[in-house]
Amino acid sequence: MSSQSGEQKMQWAIRHMPILSSVAERFEKEQPFAGLNIVIALHLEAKTANLACVMLRGGAKVAITASNPITTQDDVAQALAERGVTVFAKRGETPAEYKEYFGNVLATKPNLLIDDGGDLVNAVHFEHPELLPAIVGACEETTTGITRDRALARAGKLSFPIIGVNEGLCKHLFDNRFGTGQSAWDGILRTTNMNIAGRVVVVAGYGWVGKGVAMRARGLGAQVVVTEVDPVKSVEAHMEGYQVMPMLEAARIGEIFITCTGNVKVITKEHFGVMKDGAILCNAGHFDIEVDVQHLRNKDPQHHEVRHNIEEYASGGKHFYVLGEGRLVNLACADGHPIEIMDLTFALQALSAEYLVRHQESLPNELINVPETIDDMASRAFLASRGLSIDTLTEEQREYLGSY
Amino acid sequence: MSSQSGEQKMQWAIRHMPILSSVAERFEKEQPFAGLNIVIALHLEAKTANLACVMLRGGAKVAITASNPITTQDDVAQALAERGVTVFAKRGETPAEYKEYFGNVLATKPNLLIDDGGDLVNAVHFEHPELLPAIVGACEETTTGITRDRALARAGKLSFPIIGVNEGLCKHLFDNRFGTGQSAWDGILRTTNMNIAGRVVVVAGYGWVGKGVAMRARGLGAQVVVTEVDPVKSVEAHMEGYQVMPMLEAARIGEIFITCTGNVKVITKEHFGVMKDGAILCNAGHFDIEVDVQHLRNKDPQHHEVRHNIEEYASGGKHFYVLGEGRLVNLACADGHPIEIMDLTFALQALSAEYLVRHQESLPNELINVPETIDDMASRAFLASRGLSIDTLTEEQREYLGSY
Amino acid sequence: MSSQSGEQKMQWAIRHMPILSSVAERFEKEQPFAGLNIVIALHLEAKTANLACVMLRGGAKVAITASNPITTQDDVAQALAERGVTVFAKRGETPAEYKEYFGNVLATKPNLLIDDGGDLVNAVHFEHPELLPAIVGACEETTTGITRDRALARAGKLSFPIIGVNEGLCKHLFDNRFGTGQSAWDGILRTTNMNIAGRVVVVAGYGWVGKGVAMRARGLGAQVVVTEVDPVKSVEAHMEGYQVMPMLEAARIGEIFITCTGNVKVITKEHFGVMKDGAILCNAGHFDIEVDVQHLRNKDPQHHEVRHNIEEYASGGKHFYVLGEGRLVNLACADGHPIEIMDLTFALQALSAEYLVRHQESLPNELINVPETIDDMASRAFLASRGLSIDTLTEEQREYLGSY
Amino acid sequence: MSSQSGEQKMQWAIRHMPILSSVAERFEKEQPFAGLNIVIALHLEAKTANLACVMLRGGAKVAITASNPITTQDDVAQALAERGVTVFAKRGETPAEYKEYFGNVLATKPNLLIDDGGDLVNAVHFEHPELLPAIVGACEETTTGITRDRALARAGKLSFPIIGVNEGLCKHLFDNRFGTGQSAWDGILRTTNMNIAGRVVVVAGYGWVGKGVAMRARGLGAQVVVTEVDPVKSVEAHMEGYQVMPMLEAARIGEIFITCTGNVKVITKEHFGVMKDGAILCNAGHFDIEVDVQHLRNKDPQHHEVRHNIEEYASGGKHFYVLGEGRLVNLACADGHPIEIMDLTFALQALSAEYLVRHQESLPNELINVPETIDDMASRAFLASRGLSIDTLTEEQREYLGSY
Repeated sequence: MSSQSGEQKMQWAIRHMPILSSVAERFEKEQPFAGLNIVIALHLEAKTANLACVMLRGGAKVAITASNPITTQDDVAQALAERGVTVFAKRGETPAEYKEYFGNVLATKPNLLIDDGGDLVNAVHFEHPELLPAIVGACEETTTGITRDRALARAGKLSFPIIGVNEGLCKHLFDNRFGTGQSAWDGILRTTNMNIAGRVVVVAGYGWVGKGVAMRARGLGAQVVVTEVDPVKSVEAHMEGYQVMPMLEAARIGEIFITCTGNVKVITKEHFGVMKDGAILCNAGHFDIEVDVQHLRNKDPQHHEVRHNIEEYASGGKHFYVLGEGRLVNLACADGHPIEIMDLTFALQALSAEYLVRHQESLPNELINVPETIDDMASRAFLASRGLSIDTLTEEQREYLGSY
Repeated sequence: MSSQSGEQKMQWAIRHMPILSSVAERFEKEQPFAGLNIVIALHLEAKTANLACVMLRGGAKVAITASNPITTQDDVAQALAERGVTVFAKRGETPAEYKEYFGNVLATKPNLLIDDGGDLVNAVHFEHPELLPAIVGACEETTTGITRDRALARAGKLSFPIIGVNEGLCKHLFDNRFGTGQSAWDGILRTTNMNIAGRVVVVAGYGWVGKGVAMRARGLGAQVVVTEVDPVKSVEAHMEGYQVMPMLEAARIGEIFITCTGNVKVITKEHFGVMKDGAILCNAGHFDIEVDVQHLRNKDPQHHEVRHNIEEYASGGKHFYVLGEGRLVNLACADGHPIEIMDLTFALQALSAEYLVRHQESLPNELINVPETIDDMASRAFLASRGLSIDTLTEEQREYLGSY
Repeated sequence: MSSQSGEQKMQWAIRHMPILSSVAERFEKEQPFAGLNIVIALHLEAKTANLACVMLRGGAKVAITASNPITTQDDVAQALAERGVTVFAKRGETPAEYKEYFGNVLATKPNLLIDDGGDLVNAVHFEHPELLPAIVGACEETTTGITRDRALARAGKLSFPIIGVNEGLCKHLFDNRFGTGQSAWDGILRTTNMNIAGRVVVVAGYGWVGKGVAMRARGLGAQVVVTEVDPVKSVEAHMEGYQVMPMLEAARIGEIFITCTGNVKVITKEHFGVMKDGAILCNAGHFDIEVDVQHLRNKDPQHHEVRHNIEEYASGGKHFYVLGEGRLVNLACADGHPIEIMDLTFALQALSAEYLVRHQESLPNELINVPETIDDMASRAFLASRGLSIDTLTEEQREYLGSY
Repeated sequence: MSSQSGEQKMQWAIRHMPILSSVAERFEKEQPFAGLNIVIALHLEAKTANLACVMLRGGAKVAITASNPITTQDDVAQALAERGVTVFAKRGETPAEYKEYFGNVLATKPNLLIDDGGDLVNAVHFEHPELLPAIVGACEETTTGITRDRALARAGKLSFPIIGVNEGLCKHLFDNRFGTGQSAWDGILRTTNMNIAGRVVVVAGYGWVGKGVAMRARGLGAQVVVTEVDPVKSVEAHMEGYQVMPMLEAARIGEIFITCTGNVKVITKEHFGVMKDGAILCNAGHFDIEVDVQHLRNKDPQHHEVRHNIEEYASGGKHFYVLGEGRLVNLACADGHPIEIMDLTFALQALSAEYLVRHQESLPNELINVPETIDDMASRAFLASRGLSIDTLTEEQREYLGSY
């Protein structure tokens, strides 16, 4: 582990995050977070590290921990610590350590939370309610986290406003679809060295993540099968030319399976029973609960790694190969989302955090949408960074739209 | 004009509209529209005719006129009349006739309106307010119509509930994207006989229609350029690999232009000025106002047809070719949307109309979303008609989702 | 039938055939065909008509007949006659008329033949051997014709040189793939008005035509199944992500079938037996022998047209729909290949015909490849017509390649 | 370096190389190479190692060296040595070592050569002519090598038959296109973590490799520009919807450049001069001569690695990033071709080597095509390994084809 390689990774990321750089420059002048403690729980690698630094430049004290026990890059963690961020995270945390580190960062008495999956928000509500009064608000990164936060809000238990960053257009339209789409395949390619062209790839779930993963599977020449529980999304997948069928049927013909549902036990016992020998299993959903790896572990306690990040499980006379222990394959087996995508996402995070602070007097304790102005600002900054210009409505067009 | 060819076209359509057939069977038993007058204004061709017949089977008296002066298929109109629908429409109506026919159908004293573009709703509010008391509600087909209806609702002037069918998932996800996407190209191919592979195709507007038209342009091998005014949609088009630029720049390199914005004067004087000789111009938006054909007509009063549905305009030493007079290219130059797509859309129309009647006591005079149950019903019927089955949540999964 | 509409179609075609126009200009000056009789048998529509005129401008007397009894456009035939070409063709020729017309054009005592499918070459060898001495050579357009010509050459019976235009890079790379790919779908779309997205489309044969038809099927959102007899081509289709299986299996799941094999009885009795009710059948191969329509006709002598160019056949309690009588769907149901594609193909025809005349002393009585210089000339003219420039090898690069 | 990880990599490869496994089983029985020395020069990683083992099982003594100084995986080399192959190779060989190792393997007095790029064949002809009499023949893997071998043959200097494996259908149709297409992007993704969607990617050369790289670039959402010197290939790229232009123009707009030409100095001084700051440069052609990295090194002797396998070069106030030193990006920055692709390629190698031995009496000292039977055998084995069956010609169809 060397902080130098971590710093190098961060430098490369910063080079490809022009939106965040321009936000950071403004933050440095305006110091919106002066005197505030920010606690971040995200997948700790170079891009996230850059977000932490941007908050630092905005005047905050920042403490960070990992939102996933397996996705931390230790060299980046060390480099980040050297830049003045309080870091509690290491690759391969035990469940106990994972919990301990959450305690550590929360001990800094946060005023703002940057959450990924809802663990921070749940921790302060149910384990550290003494922290609630000081908290201005939180930003949540994922679909999963928003579902959990919404449940909290509906139950009337939410103690501060949360901006659902995932619902921002510049997040879910790009991060979940293009980000996961590309990076999940980056992880699968480098881990397996398998040929994707012609392979039967089963994508479970056709939300934004599933759409992205299916799109890139096709882009690599795969024959794509989609499984869904929602009939409208199923029609959508069908119209895109994908085969649509129940998982039990897909399991019989699939060769590579990628779960993208946000739900539990999507591929389990009954599916293993009919699967082909040699099937590859991985997950692109937030938690490692979609593929029932525990079932395989119980069946084959002797399972072993056959290639970096590939575990072989024997079961019923067949062998199955699980990538990255069934955790997010793009983070466990690759470097997470492409940098530029995270530039958009983290620009939303940084701007949403600023919004929470600037509007703290007026915001209700609810799950709040990303304000349109933030999406507008981030997307225009992205276009500018790519050297693109677009049309603006003429006076006559504006009048026409208004004339109704 | 022969009612026989019209009846034949209708039979072919019915064969490919299984969802509507199953709805019609139920309507025939339940007679939800017994005693009601329904007025329809839609593009009058075989699929629309089928919708009219379904309403008829549901017990209604039905009068129909065209929502566009150029898209009526006369043989279908005649066949429909023979089936008992009151028809006022012919291909190539003058503006005066168009208006007169609206008067004719409204004279039947409608209780329900099936509208396409908002003309019926506007007519009863501003020209025939005496009809308002008897009207239970309306269904609106298009983005354009909904924008107009919303303006009416916001102004507090709406006198009955309107279901914005276009906002139904089973409408805009499929009809605007896959329906217009395919049929616009059907119109362009058959009208021009040009090779699309390698052509620079400019798609103005990246809403659902623009997305569909761009997707199929690429599917035909074109090099696609997208113009937009919305920055988020621009980023989306860019991420799909399309070139994004202002129209003035696109005009210099484009060879085939398709407007899909719903706005006015998208391609006009300044663009013609820089365009290449031989450029093809057409429109897939609701009104024929996106390409400024009037400007070309003024410049070249001698313009003439060089091939069926292609007018040549000389201007500034160059020649431009306008398809279908700048009206909806899929309707003016082809047979409109694919049948199965309209099966979904019209199932939403029929079920929404039924909903208006069954809930007339309780619905507010507002623009109402398509109820989720209707989208669910239509999409499940579609999947069934295609022989597809999908997963359902297990008890454990349902609990997991609910556990938050 | 009006020669005016035919002339208009020809004008539109000429506008989009810049390569042929430049060839024609040179021919007009150099008169390579002065004093020669040329007989052409091609699908008689606007683009072919343009080729005939180019030969005319090169000094030839030209007689033309149709290479297919159903694909002639009568208005074009009339316009062509008015331009001075001897025409024997009409849409819907009987087999007797087809044969008679061949006799008519051959009676002009040709010196050069432009053949499509090998019928002209066979006719002069086996029915009119008296014409052989005057014949300088022939150009053949199709894979099918070349197979027949090659058999003749192998048997030592060929009496003059034939240039296999189909083997020219600028022919089969573009015409068979991009030309048929687009135009076959143009025919299917306009004839059926069906939605292709999500449909199971079965493409029989994965040669250049099959590749093009499959590519565009996918571009329209279909789920594509390929059947083949060649194992290497099967692997190729598989790697492109298409499903590969025997026709008997494909017949069970297919909804639209397109034969592209150049072989006989590809879809027949046993396949109809397992096919779904409502299957659409069409052909993109040269002869109408790939789908066994005769079998269906025998089963259902009452078959009738249900929509323009769609015949319904009842068989075994099911209904099948045959487009364009099982003849080339792009010609029988649409306007044939896109114009610009035929510009490339016919440039090869015109230049090959010139080559035969200019090298008549030295050419052997064999099937000859299109000379590289002709492909080079045509492709460079195409690039120029599209305003494209490309790199040229530097001196250093040329040396490097030569250094081996 | 651990032989265990190398052995593990080999095991994973063997699992996905079913064709080679079935060939090896037969070889083990038939011992076609008993008593022969085979020398192999290939990129030394797990898949190549498997080929070496297959030859071993066929009775040969095998010595192997690397065909590229940077692509050897040391753990695999060690594992291979433990299996009984004589190995001279290490990652990062100096030019002197590269040459020395060639000497070492040739000292084993080969009877058969498996060559990649022509270095072995050239070495025995020009540096070790004393070895020529014992050599039965050679197999050559690449386009580059075949060009060199052909030059030798044309000059009348070839002393033994060479089978141009690259010209085998099962090689160039799949390996160059699908293999390099996927693996080059695997290398770029994992090395840069950049977002490809929307990026302007310039592919230099549109041969099989360029076709594959461009296809996958599009599959990842890039906007693809192709540069070429051949006009027919340029038209082909254009028809696929790619932008075609000279490199000097492409250099101005490109963001990621991938050379695939097999030629020298494709991207050089004049192009760097107009390129954007931050451009990414890499190569998928055989030799590291396509991007003029030497020029950059001279300009910026201080250049340094900014991320694993990325060197930053300052030049003219801009920064350029070269991946894998401008060597084959799929091998230098990833694990080379996907395993299943190499299964096909190496099956051709093994079967061609067997063919050379079995037909040594009758083969001329020329460059020989891969016999059709070998392509047939390999492709059928591939289909079988994927569980696919295909059609066979009926008696009637066979007769029809033969009837001409």
